[in-house]
Amino acid sequence: MEANVRDVEAAERASEQGELSPALVRRLGLTPDKLDSLCDGMRQLAAQKDIVGHVVEHRELDEGLVLQRITCPLGLLGVIFESRPDAVPQITSLAIKSGNAVLLKGGREAVHSNRALVEALRVVLEKHGVDGAAMGLLEDRSEVAAMLELDALVDLIIARGSGAFVKHIMANTNIAVMGHAEGLCHLYLHDSADAEMAARIAVDAKCSYSAACNAIETLLWSDGSGAAMARCVEALREKDVEVRGCDKTRQAVAGLIEATEADWSQEYTAPVLAVRYVADVDEALAHIARYGSKHTETLIAQDKDVAARFLAEVDAACVFHNASSRFADGYRFGLGAEVGISTGKLHARGPVGVEGLLTYRWLLEGNGQISTAYGPGKKQYQHKNLL
Amino acid sequence: MEANVRDVEAAERASEQGELSPALVRRLGLTPDKLDSLCDGMRQLAAQKDIVGHVVEHRELDEGLVLQRITCPLGLLGVIFESRPDAVPQITSLAIKSGNAVLLKGGREAVHSNRALVEALRVVLEKHGVDGAAMGLLEDRSEVAAMLELDALVDLIIARGSGAFVKHIMANTNIAVMGHAEGLCHLYLHDSADAEMAARIAVDAKCSYSAACNAIETLLWSDGSGAAMARCVEALREKDVEVRGCDKTRQAVAGLIEATEADWSQEYTAPVLAVRYVADVDEALAHIARYGSKHTETLIAQDKDVAARFLAEVDAACVFHNASSRFADGYRFGLGAEVGISTGKLHARGPVGVEGLLTYRWLLEGNGQISTAYGPGKKQYQHKNLL
Repeated sequence: MEANVRDVEAAERASEQGELSPALVRRLGLTPDKLDSLCDGMRQLAAQKDIVGHVVEHRELDEGLVLQRITCPLGLLGVIFESRPDAVPQITSLAIKSGNAVLLKGGREAVHSNRALVEALRVVLEKHGVDGAAMGLLEDRSEVAAMLELDALVDLIIARGSGAFVKHIMANTNIAVMGHAEGLCHLYLHDSADAEMAARIAVDAKCSYSAACNAIETLLWSDGSGAAMARCVEALREKDVEVRGCDKTRQAVAGLIEATEADWSQEYTAPVLAVRYVADVDEALAHIARYGSKHTETLIAQDKDVAARFLAEVDAACVFHNASSRFADGYRFGLGAEVGISTGKLHARGPVGVEGLLTYRWLLEGNGQISTAYGPGKKQYQHKNLL
Repeated sequence: MEANVRDVEAAERASEQGELSPALVRRLGLTPDKLDSLCDGMRQLAAQKDIVGHVVEHRELDEGLVLQRITCPLGLLGVIFESRPDAVPQITSLAIKSGNAVLLKGGREAVHSNRALVEALRVVLEKHGVDGAAMGLLEDRSEVAAMLELDALVDLIIARGSGAFVKHIMANTNIAVMGHAEGLCHLYLHDSADAEMAARIAVDAKCSYSAACNAIETLLWSDGSGAAMARCVEALREKDVEVRGCDKTRQAVAGLIEATEADWSQEYTAPVLAVRYVADVDEALAHIARYGSKHTETLIAQDKDVAARFLAEVDAACVFHNASSRFADGYRFGLGAEVGISTGKLHARGPVGVEGLLTYRWLLEGNGQISTAYGPGKKQYQHKNLL
């Protein structure tokens, strides 16, 4: 707490001089309550069953030749995160739970907090027989640049921050990057949408945390859902959301700012929403395919056939029907602690739990078997599953 | 077959002029038997259960708010492969079985064979209601370069060929690449190794197909396994393998070529083997960690504790005990058809079956739920697993 006070005081001075945003100063502060809830989260993770060394496949290839696929850590993680010092214990506990070593780089505003947290965590690790060197703290940008070069040693970079920041990291390393990349999420009101449900979900999906990657950026509507759209716009404006509309939308609802082509591709990370008319489901799906970031796409509809089609056809990590896009979250999904939300398709997709920090190894035990003994007219593989 | 004859005849002429290796000409040829066995493989794959749309997780987050994680295709695959025209039906069937579209680029020596195969496969696809455009054939390098730029459209590049070729592809695209990268595999003879078993496995692992990525390149031995090593060298020389040794090895066995530092890092893809003395298990593990490519590492030992340690500590896709490294193969592992062998740790590791061409989507169905209704003092998540 003492170390954190130093950081917060320095940040407040910088904020008074306009060098830091008040929001950043708020994120920087630790309170006894926050620390308690961090400890709580770590204890929950510690109490979960072990995920390393789990036998995923077990197969007798032939008599006395037994194959197992078992989970194991990726190895060494490099994690680059924003100013919140809470991230240090959260990320470290995810890394250690999955058997990984971790290099941490936090915001420089949190340097004293991060040092104190790393010191405390190292004491715990060593008390439990884990080398304190399993976690390392990087403090300046040249160290990050050096880490990004270590593609033979670092197995995964986790980058938390803005889409632009994640892209910058990806462009500067050959190491695989898992990142909270862009979240350009749509809410489509089908003709059969319930207007009150639509408004409730639109407000939750835009206003509960407008900077979140799972917040919506664009609302789509068709002829039959004009009333539902108008109800959404009304409710959003009550929450001071800036609503921008296409021509058809502005004809239907007065007083909207004009949306341009650029709006369909923009993640506002702010209380701003674009609204666009689409002729039908086909056009809605085409708009989503073209402008979406494959994060979370939501349909509001009472029509079950339309829901089935939307759920089947939209290519995104999360596809929702009659529920807020804000549920796209590891904790809410029941994955326990969350590593991040991935918009890539390989390895882990969408909200990533601690399992996303694992890979596996194939272990084969025999008693002298050779491959040339098998084949047509020779020994045959049995491939008998033992699990 | 007619088209293939054209390719083979042209290749034979090129070979006579020293422009193509005889091995390449051999790989190019299709026979009725080879075609039959290709068809057989495709029928087997077709007969396997559907892998797309499989529900992997099913969880009630709260009453009426149900989450599913279901498998789905990656989308569009780009596959760049060597001259064997067999690869066209093999890869296409893997792609179609997993619901993916595919762009194929084969060797230019096989151009007529590949065109004929693609034409035949398109007829089959369209007969079964699949758009023939689900497969595309690229014929020159500029088309490959263009494909490698399409990171917004192509979801995965599969590169088959030499390690250098795979690295070249990786260096020239932002798309994820799954490749038969380097296979620098070791065979370690522990003091407790059975000499005859060691020799049998060494010959299988080196000679059954010395250009394979799962062939061994280096044999390690210690004081107690000198006799087993000598037996291996004798058996390998009988098979005309060129054996190179470190100083200690050359003192133990006469007439070996001197191995230099460069040998420990070299994938020969030829009947050549390097042999090195290591003081003990620690040194063997250190050598493997330093020079291995994380593909397949094999121990020969009767000592169960050593086997347990080797299996636990070696970081490689495949870790074997008393079995040939050549078993590291999707078919031999019982995965059905093989996409390739990945030495990366993310997504799929080691032999990759058709499941490696899948990702998943999270589908959430509710009846109007919003995220802000949940939290301390509000509604609680149930997270009830339904699978």
